[in-house]
Amino acid sequence: MKLMKNGSITSPQGYTVGIATCGLKVSAQPDLMLLHSIRDCTAAALFTRNQVVGAPITLNRETLASNNKTVRAVAINSGIANVCTGALGLQNARSMQSMTATALHCQPDQVLVLSTGLIGVQLPMEQLSAGIGTAATKPQSNGGPEAARAIMTTDTLPKHLAIRIYTPRGKVTIGAIVKGSGMIHPNMATMLALITTDANIPATNLQSLLKPAVDASFNRISIDGDTSTSDAVLLLANGTSGISCARGESRQSFEQALNYLVTQLAKQVVQDGEGVSKLVAIRVSGARKRVDAHRVANTIATSPLVKTMLAGSDPNWGRVMAAAGRAGVHFDPLHTKLWIGTDQRKYLQLVEHGAACDYNEPDAVRILSSTDFEIHLDLGCGQQETTVWTGDLTREYVSINTDYRT
Amino acid sequence: MKLMKNGSITSPQGYTVGIATCGLKVSAQPDLMLLHSIRDCTAAALFTRNQVVGAPITLNRETLASNNKTVRAVAINSGIANVCTGALGLQNARSMQSMTATALHCQPDQVLVLSTGLIGVQLPMEQLSAGIGTAATKPQSNGGPEAARAIMTTDTLPKHLAIRIYTPRGKVTIGAIVKGSGMIHPNMATMLALITTDANIPATNLQSLLKPAVDASFNRISIDGDTSTSDAVLLLANGTSGISCARGESRQSFEQALNYLVTQLAKQVVQDGEGVSKLVAIRVSGARKRVDAHRVANTIATSPLVKTMLAGSDPNWGRVMAAAGRAGVHFDPLHTKLWIGTDQRKYLQLVEHGAACDYNEPDAVRILSSTDFEIHLDLGCGQQETTVWTGDLTREYVSINTDYRT
Repeated sequence: MKLMKNGSITSPQGYTVGIATCGLKVSAQPDLMLLHSIRDCTAAALFTRNQVVGAPITLNRETLASNNKTVRAVAINSGIANVCTGALGLQNARSMQSMTATALHCQPDQVLVLSTGLIGVQLPMEQLSAGIGTAATKPQSNGGPEAARAIMTTDTLPKHLAIRIYTPRGKVTIGAIVKGSGMIHPNMATMLALITTDANIPATNLQSLLKPAVDASFNRISIDGDTSTSDAVLLLANGTSGISCARGESRQSFEQALNYLVTQLAKQVVQDGEGVSKLVAIRVSGARKRVDAHRVANTIATSPLVKTMLAGSDPNWGRVMAAAGRAGVHFDPLHTKLWIGTDQRKYLQLVEHGAACDYNEPDAVRILSSTDFEIHLDLGCGQQETTVWTGDLTREYVSINTDYRT
Repeated sequence: MKLMKNGSITSPQGYTVGIATCGLKVSAQPDLMLLHSIRDCTAAALFTRNQVVGAPITLNRETLASNNKTVRAVAINSGIANVCTGALGLQNARSMQSMTATALHCQPDQVLVLSTGLIGVQLPMEQLSAGIGTAATKPQSNGGPEAARAIMTTDTLPKHLAIRIYTPRGKVTIGAIVKGSGMIHPNMATMLALITTDANIPATNLQSLLKPAVDASFNRISIDGDTSTSDAVLLLANGTSGISCARGESRQSFEQALNYLVTQLAKQVVQDGEGVSKLVAIRVSGARKRVDAHRVANTIATSPLVKTMLAGSDPNWGRVMAAAGRAGVHFDPLHTKLWIGTDQRKYLQLVEHGAACDYNEPDAVRILSSTDFEIHLDLGCGQQETTVWTGDLTREYVSINTDYRT
């Protein structure tokens, strides 16, 4: 397994990307990407669980229910989310799909479409149409990193990665681009991830690989607790490598690589979260049930008081305890322990039996001042545990979201 | 029913207050108040539902379970919460109770104690003891407003109020002081409320009056979604007026006045919330069940993206829709409607059938720029509704909570 420098969705064989600037963003930066595969792909997908979903999500669900999970292209625009746009919004999503199909010479139901950005605004279809035309005529076999840039909204950095695995019958590559910066919260939340591979994997196997990988990565991160209307993770496999990863050892290798890839990208999403200056793992152990551990970890990870404490590098650990206590999970505070640390071998214990240990305050401040550390709470009532990732809540987060539109 | 200017817990007959500065706050402001009644009071109380509670909460629960709900005095300190302080913390809370009893010549089980402030720090008992001595020797019959100041932590304004009601047999007064500025969220959250009355009401009736009043006020407000370990609402009735408000019309008048009092104070708490610049009512109607309406309203009220939108006076209403959609309540977005307004008679409709109306943007900005307005979302699937109150999320909130301790 090898991480590929500057890897992305065009690292696997047989994919090209075209980019265009339709003028959907105030910044006048590229805002459209078309991914095209030279062969039919099998597809797996996961979408937001929000009740309010964008027209593209509705359309993709419909498309994937009828196209036998066969996909040839993906079109993604940033700047406008096409959410809360009624019947016209759905019609526009369909037009985006059919225009892309026409431009890339495939069937509409072989095209998936995604949109991210402002809610409640209609897509300017003429501009989008022109952009699709431009992007389709300039396919680039190394355009993935540019595509990662074209799908950004408030992201400050493009996020892309690829991994190569070596099987007895040859090499297989998995590549991905991801965007998402605010509204990041289980489940997925203003997060778009497009993953490609040249492995040969039937659609059903592909879905069974994607689901647990996303559950252990994108569904364990939180920027602000807000879940978006447009979240989507797509995984396409075009089989161009000629190597099957549907079962056996090659499937295991693929699974491992995919899990690693999405976990790395999930952490990158948190690190590039709006106003986030540090990546903090919240580990909760000693829970009776797994779901209890999750609930406590998520409550800590989304607590504004914990997140501002992280911003201030202030070992005001009572806020962690208070957040845990309101998670709706029963535990005895007198059995709790709390540690913080950057290096698992020498964690600093702050709490024993629910009360302060005699720790050295500057040591605690030093740990909380680093850009990547763990907070570990043991509830002392069971064997289950989980880890989620969060970031700090800074003045910058508020500035970004106060001024986002106006 | 008459609102009393500068009213407080000493407005009802037969209560005095003593104040002291023990040095528990960095600001060196008064940090201790003792409320003393000239007669035994009946008492009603509601405490935080957090699993992690302060030693005073544990002690009060114990006291109220054994003292036949008879109370003579209340001691409250600010600066240190006495939470996550283990066995020593509970011992200190007991000492605070018995020292107050000695100083005021009553039994320990006639004293309730509350603490608010930092978690994980022990109370400096010598300083506290000296303060209790000082406060007990200077009882003031008009000390209520000063008491409101002594219980403040990050509050910027003391919050106190009194109401007088006129019954056929004479007048009855209800007074209150409240603190709470961060961590304000159902249920109650770093909020202490002490309410006194000179009405004559048995303890059981008193509790049945307090519970619904708090449910409709303090349990409907949110600053940051964090729930504290120390929340408490206490209601004492010393009967000094000689007028019973246990049943009939006088009970109805009392109930109405109490509800009004706590609702006003709840709104004051939001308005004085950390960094809050505006008070926003979130009304959700058209829900199938009351609990659904609550869940949607609370999710909107605590969404960082909604709250930063409020700070920016930006009619980016998609964030309201997105928050509603992730509340875990099923509804059809195509049946939703959304209005905003300061005056119920001429609300501005932003959304119809889940999509944007043709409204005038400057009108929307004008409404969102005011300091007191309502956001009304109709889910279009039932008859139930609720209203909660929230504030905006500003850079100042982050500054206050980033720098709280260090």
